[in-house]
Amino acid sequence: MPLHEAARNLEDDAAVLQVGGETLVVTHDAMAEGTHFRVGADLADVAWKLVASNLSDLAAKGARPVGLLLSYMLGDADARFLEGLHRVSTALDVPILGGDTIAASGPRTFAATLIGRATHVPVPSRAGAQTSDAIWLCGRLGDAMLGFEDPDSDHAAAFLRPIPLLDEGELVAPLATAMMDVSDGLLLDASRMAAASNVGFALETGAMPIADRARIHECLSWGDDYALLFTLPADTVPPVAAHRIGSVGP
Amino acid sequence: MPLHEAARNLEDDAAVLQVGGETLVVTHDAMAEGTHFRVGADLADVAWKLVASNLSDLAAKGARPVGLLLSYMLGDADARFLEGLHRVSTALDVPILGGDTIAASGPRTFAATLIGRATHVPVPSRAGAQTSDAIWLCGRLGDAMLGFEDPDSDHAAAFLRPIPLLDEGELVAPLATAMMDVSDGLLLDASRMAAASNVGFALETGAMPIADRARIHECLSWGDDYALLFTLPADTVPPVAAHRIGSVGP
Repeated sequence: MPLHEAARNLEDDAAVLQVGGETLVVTHDAMAEGTHFRVGADLADVAWKLVASNLSDLAAKGARPVGLLLSYMLGDADARFLEGLHRVSTALDVPILGGDTIAASGPRTFAATLIGRATHVPVPSRAGAQTSDAIWLCGRLGDAMLGFEDPDSDHAAAFLRPIPLLDEGELVAPLATAMMDVSDGLLLDASRMAAASNVGFALETGAMPIADRARIHECLSWGDDYALLFTLPADTVPPVAAHRIGSVGP
Repeated sequence: MPLHEAARNLEDDAAVLQVGGETLVVTHDAMAEGTHFRVGADLADVAWKLVASNLSDLAAKGARPVGLLLSYMLGDADARFLEGLHRVSTALDVPILGGDTIAASGPRTFAATLIGRATHVPVPSRAGAQTSDAIWLCGRLGDAMLGFEDPDSDHAAAFLRPIPLLDEGELVAPLATAMMDVSDGLLLDASRMAAASNVGFALETGAMPIADRARIHECLSWGDDYALLFTLPADTVPPVAAHRIGSVGP
């Protein structure tokens, strides 16, 4: 398959594209009813999460949003989706560039392409962790799981309307040797970063910010928290609130 | 809804984005099984058409492709889709930037975002037709319909594997007062251009290049031909093979 060099061999969360002296970061994610959201979910929440999860990929690149394009399958509760789209677009400052609506039967599917502008080059990848770096985490793990389990709890928003860590990503990007967002669970995502960087990760679970310590393994395995995982040289102090959760070995 | 100014109020086929001294053209289209392609269609053809139809939007802007991002719903015949994607990506010179695969039940849906680079600014819109301009068409109408009706005919490729008129769009862009691709049928698309430009179109159907003159109305109403419709000042000769199909009135 002819891959653009910007695609980073499809091993990263986003493509990094040079355009006229600027660096764009482009990411695309899709969601399907029954897989990524419950049948009967409030589509205002679905719209929020679709956009926010893509923005989290931009955050991990230290990029600011330029705009989004959307695929929308028409069906029930279109007005709720539009309501959520309006809300997330306004709250997270990401204007609509365009998109397409389609009519089809079956489970609803939605997709979004986010275009961002890098605030720092080189743009961090997940492949840059170096032996003796410290491993850091910005954000807490497990809140989305608890919110999924109990939609009436204080954790509900963490699952339904996550906040991408755009400011934090921008501050960390100039310092990080590697960065990615934790969307598929810390254990899986950390192993991906270690593999991409061709190093080993020694994680200290006792140091991790966890929503429910009695269920630590579930909190480390569940996704959707949209925390930022990054590595820094051992003597570098992170410019954001973060926990040191381990160190990089050979 | 917060719209990016690049979105052209969602009244155009593509967004036009200024980035560091360059002008990008971004478009997004989706396709659903049962709506945009037949159940049981060869997914190699579907992949081709998904990419080619988006490229046609770039052609209408005089843009060259930079790369594409793809939403792909996994299912049967994934290898055929990949085969078609490889073929269209190679043949039309549009490398893959990234995307997302999703697992879901129900009819397959696919979406693509195409990023292109404008070769001429200002980028033509559909809203610029001027009174006394001539109306031109590059490409023939009705072949896709005939190919849809008879997949064993010579017209089959016109429906299954359309060729976007990228070279033609690039040549016309510096001269056109308005341009768009004809994806939804000439009569509908011409009425959209006239409305967007706030003018009237006088079309001369006798002058139109039609695949089957006995069925002219169907040929003018059916979509999927991906011809280019554009307007030029009355004394301008188009730099591509094209038919003069009418004139712009007040």
